[in-house]
Amino acid sequence: MSPKVAHNHVRLPQDLPLESGQVLPRPAIGFETLGRLNADRSNAILICHALTGDQYVASPHPVTGKPGWWTRMVGPGLPIDPERHFIICSNVIGGCMGSEGPASPHPVDGAPWALRFPVITIADMVRAQAGLLDSLGVETLLAVVGGSMGGMQALQWAASYPGRVRSVLVIASAARHSAQNIAFHEVGRQAIMADPKWKGGAYGAGEGPAKGLAVARMAAHITYLSEAGLTAKFGRHLQQGNAKSFGFDADFQIESYLRHQGMSFVDRFDANAYLYITRALDYFDLAEDYGGQLAQAFAATEARFCVISFDTDWLYPTAESKRIVQALVAAGRHASFVELTSPFGHDAFLLDTPGLNEVVDGFLKAVERTA
Amino acid sequence: MSPKVAHNHVRLPQDLPLESGQVLPRPAIGFETLGRLNADRSNAILICHALTGDQYVASPHPVTGKPGWWTRMVGPGLPIDPERHFIICSNVIGGCMGSEGPASPHPVDGAPWALRFPVITIADMVRAQAGLLDSLGVETLLAVVGGSMGGMQALQWAASYPGRVRSVLVIASAARHSAQNIAFHEVGRQAIMADPKWKGGAYGAGEGPAKGLAVARMAAHITYLSEAGLTAKFGRHLQQGNAKSFGFDADFQIESYLRHQGMSFVDRFDANAYLYITRALDYFDLAEDYGGQLAQAFAATEARFCVISFDTDWLYPTAESKRIVQALVAAGRHASFVELTSPFGHDAFLLDTPGLNEVVDGFLKAVERTA
Repeated sequence: MSPKVAHNHVRLPQDLPLESGQVLPRPAIGFETLGRLNADRSNAILICHALTGDQYVASPHPVTGKPGWWTRMVGPGLPIDPERHFIICSNVIGGCMGSEGPASPHPVDGAPWALRFPVITIADMVRAQAGLLDSLGVETLLAVVGGSMGGMQALQWAASYPGRVRSVLVIASAARHSAQNIAFHEVGRQAIMADPKWKGGAYGAGEGPAKGLAVARMAAHITYLSEAGLTAKFGRHLQQGNAKSFGFDADFQIESYLRHQGMSFVDRFDANAYLYITRALDYFDLAEDYGGQLAQAFAATEARFCVISFDTDWLYPTAESKRIVQALVAAGRHASFVELTSPFGHDAFLLDTPGLNEVVDGFLKAVERTA
Repeated sequence: MSPKVAHNHVRLPQDLPLESGQVLPRPAIGFETLGRLNADRSNAILICHALTGDQYVASPHPVTGKPGWWTRMVGPGLPIDPERHFIICSNVIGGCMGSEGPASPHPVDGAPWALRFPVITIADMVRAQAGLLDSLGVETLLAVVGGSMGGMQALQWAASYPGRVRSVLVIASAARHSAQNIAFHEVGRQAIMADPKWKGGAYGAGEGPAKGLAVARMAAHITYLSEAGLTAKFGRHLQQGNAKSFGFDADFQIESYLRHQGMSFVDRFDANAYLYITRALDYFDLAEDYGGQLAQAFAATEARFCVISFDTDWLYPTAESKRIVQALVAAGRHASFVELTSPFGHDAFLLDTPGLNEVVDGFLKAVERTA
């Protein structure tokens, strides 16, 4: 669990109704902005983060000190440019980086919400973001942009607030969680809940189920990569030359890499937040509220869409992107689809992927020209 | 961990040297046979089991009471036929079904070996099987047959005992463990070791790391299936009609299925055995002892080979089978290769897969004709 750090945030002026029927009383929303809103308020871009992402898109992470997670895409001279755009990114509700989540103090007793926090959905996350935009004086978005879970939020924006988005950019994402997606998340949740330090969610700050959370992260991390990428990067290379230890230490480089991924994740993430956000992902099926007709979710918006997938992404494979595009076109939307080649699997959206920046840049500039 | 049941077994008359340089003192080998060895001792088939398999190929499992794991393939009138063949299957060393493993009593102090058990390899498993065959009076095998880890043992047989095998049948397998294969196993091992009940391996009988082992099994189980198969079988079906619980119980059918897989596995398998056998798999790279030239592993045998893969198997994908076949042909071996279509992923070798029995039957009968 992340140490206490101060995140820039607002508290929404009203309670947030949730899909479950519950209400989140005046939730805090942690967020960062870059650039300035222009005079006609037409240059705002909302970036939606992925499962373990946060609002630190292009500014240093306050816990790890590492650069923002999308500095390849966001920055001066880059496709999403603070000199041209007013860039907003908020921590999702249910998260642990300044937005109301299970580690936040409960408004009545001040103890962490823990499992008293209501189960939230992608639509709830988006409703909270809309509240943030209201408080920032942003009515309409030039673009809503997201990769992975961020792409789901972007799709949900078009469905929930069809008039507030001029364009939607969906990268390495899906309009629903598949059985396999749910299965991997369930393994992670069970790993957390199996850790006796989880204590039904009621662990103290800094005393959470670190080992269980690390295992959850390790399992998930494999799904973010590709077999070919793993083979290219690690193969069967041993840590120590050619010597197998004939023991259970990390003999192979892939083992110590995964262990590191698990352990370093624990330093920056709350285990209960991981439960809640994975649950929101598993519940996501955009067509569900539209009688199973995905196209109906896009019937009310005039937004332009760009959908990008990566050929080695097996978490949200190209077929899921094509399904989105098919529904968009069936709904009469202007939808571009690009499958990019990358050895990096799902993580390609965060990495140097040839063509990605060019596609995003071209799409956003075209939307700006049609203002 | 499996309750104590009596398994048919022999104790090898001599100590077993291991790849690690250690020696296993006169190990017990649990085994089952079906059919009878014929007069010229030419009808013996060794079946090698997979990671969590055992010697109960076509006889009821003594712990679960379930039918043998390969009753679709082994039985009267089936491709491997006790009326025609002398069928042998032994529990691998390192296992927990009657062969010497970490849960076996240490020869000196009688307490479980636990982590004092030496790390073993696929070649060590095969060396133990050769000892069993010696004790059964079987010099030459009509066929060595295996799926998954069993296929690795079958390949290792051809390399280690080139003159003792007339044919080798390798199903849904690979000649090495990939980085992704190792990664998934490492997640499982870490899940077990993260469970405080593991106690460095020194848990008492019936008091093992059940939760950690269940998580390990859940993660592995996903790799045995295919995304398409999961979608077809479970999709996003809920347990209770259309009602999401907005909680962390098993809402989706895939969740309760996985939880059941994890929990029922714990009843029949020892956590330390899982550590040792996954380690043996990760260490497997048949080419390694031959200067990285896989073909050299097959240079000394005259055996005929049949290699079968399944198109939806992403654990040991078709590409790995093709790599084996390429090496076999380069070594001048008679090698047939068949890729079968199945929605069931890796598990297809255990299930009703059209064409599988016909291919195995045709191959084995051809070998028998060339006796």
